[in-house]
Amino acid sequence: MPTVLFAVPALWEEYRPSLTAAFDGMGVDLVTEAAPETVDYIIYAPSSPLQDFAPYTACKAVLSLWAGVERIVGNPSLTQALCRMVDPALTEGMVEWVVGHALRHHLGIDRHIVNPGRVWDPTCPPLARERPVAMLGMGELGTAAARALASLNFPVTGWSRSAKAVAGIACLHGEEGLEAALRGAAIVVTLLPKTAETENLLDARRLAMLPAGAVILNPGRGAIIDDAALLAALDAGHIGHATLDVFRVEPLPKDHPYWAHPRVTVTPHIAADTRPASSARVIAENVRRGEAGEPLLNLVDRKRGY
Amino acid sequence: MPTVLFAVPALWEEYRPSLTAAFDGMGVDLVTEAAPETVDYIIYAPSSPLQDFAPYTACKAVLSLWAGVERIVGNPSLTQALCRMVDPALTEGMVEWVVGHALRHHLGIDRHIVNPGRVWDPTCPPLARERPVAMLGMGELGTAAARALASLNFPVTGWSRSAKAVAGIACLHGEEGLEAALRGAAIVVTLLPKTAETENLLDARRLAMLPAGAVILNPGRGAIIDDAALLAALDAGHIGHATLDVFRVEPLPKDHPYWAHPRVTVTPHIAADTRPASSARVIAENVRRGEAGEPLLNLVDRKRGY
Repeated sequence: MPTVLFAVPALWEEYRPSLTAAFDGMGVDLVTEAAPETVDYIIYAPSSPLQDFAPYTACKAVLSLWAGVERIVGNPSLTQALCRMVDPALTEGMVEWVVGHALRHHLGIDRHIVNPGRVWDPTCPPLARERPVAMLGMGELGTAAARALASLNFPVTGWSRSAKAVAGIACLHGEEGLEAALRGAAIVVTLLPKTAETENLLDARRLAMLPAGAVILNPGRGAIIDDAALLAALDAGHIGHATLDVFRVEPLPKDHPYWAHPRVTVTPHIAADTRPASSARVIAENVRRGEAGEPLLNLVDRKRGY
Repeated sequence: MPTVLFAVPALWEEYRPSLTAAFDGMGVDLVTEAAPETVDYIIYAPSSPLQDFAPYTACKAVLSLWAGVERIVGNPSLTQALCRMVDPALTEGMVEWVVGHALRHHLGIDRHIVNPGRVWDPTCPPLARERPVAMLGMGELGTAAARALASLNFPVTGWSRSAKAVAGIACLHGEEGLEAALRGAAIVVTLLPKTAETENLLDARRLAMLPAGAVILNPGRGAIIDDAALLAALDAGHIGHATLDVFRVEPLPKDHPYWAHPRVTVTPHIAADTRPASSARVIAENVRRGEAGEPLLNLVDRKRGY
């Protein structure tokens, strides 16, 4: 009977019912405390008090509740297999956030929400087919969001580290590809993992490649954006708006200039939430695979970092 | 050589380049003035000074630039064939408006746009699959919008006068079907034509069928909604929000209570605009069909009124 340690006390009440249901009939011993050497799997998040994995000598896998593992992968005591969360509900929520905020900017919805002058100006926005989108990052989430935008006729260019092919999406890669993607984009969405190569990817030089008035949506990782460069580009009016869901420090400090900036919308890291019901099923499937000797889902490549 | 009269002087400059291009090579005489008995086709909108169709004795069809023809169809002098506009760009614009405003309410975007307290509340919205939508009207526009919402996982129930079947959409009809559609809906979209049967369709009795907090999107026809009943339901908090694009009187008068209501968003009849380039191609295709003796596209059924 495998012992599964739930190592994030703050989330136990939220996850217990879903995990109990997902493990039903699997003969799993789901615990919140155990002698380290008896633990077969660890359910984990970076906020966990468990930071030293060395005593977990029998542990077959650390199963993250989060999609982003950059705060876990660098832990030198973590020699066990690490799986990130790819929750179908998380992908759905992300697609909804990206499409909703893209359409908000595309349709110019704000001018109707706040219209104290009761101005009746029946100027139509252009069609989505006239509004090119660059999707930076074509992993699970980026590809799903790109497809949803393309199905609404947005011309989508996908950009990723290595070459990809996705039906209906013009895919570019490498430094030259990035410049081409940015130069043509009215809306840029960043869904890249945080790695040494992606940190500050959107710096002053690359922001300057965007056409004037371009909108940035960042539901991915805060560190992808050079904050000072973005604020300067917003102040200069070169960037039309930035809607940001992720930040280097969260919650975003009350005195951060993003809060007050008229061209910035802050959403509080809600674009993609891991949801207990669906993520518990992913965790249970990985425990089943581990016990059956089958390949684990969403195994992290420790060299790439994701 | 057929003579095509463009009978809406106010739109001539906007449409001339697109119509000239669309008629290229067809041997059409496109004019803004002509002896009535020499005219083969009339390009028309309700704002046209031409109101007496009787002298146009050779006219094979009146080709409307608008999708809604309720202000044309009742003209007793109009005995010629009448075609409404079904512009692919109009459908695209409508789908974008419906999906954008549905997602705005679904995601609760407003609380992030206006957030003077800099509140970081990472409560996620439910997923679209947990937010049922009722689409009232399953014609060209309603079906396209329903499909786009369903592709984002919204559970969509379509309602129409007569029975329909659309893949992926639960279709209901008749009075009983309307009640079932309304009772289950978190978001209601109205895309019905204006007829004697649809006027005031959303009255106090039917608004009361909606679950508390339901959101109404009306990009169709203003007269579908009983305005006094809607305002009462909004005041009572039973209806969570109404986003309205069409009104009995347009522009919406500055003193209309919709402008000031905190639960109402007014958009200025922009959900679906006929666009010269794409609608000119539809007009040209109908002239070609008329000359070839083929059935006209989008012919209005004068008894139904659309």
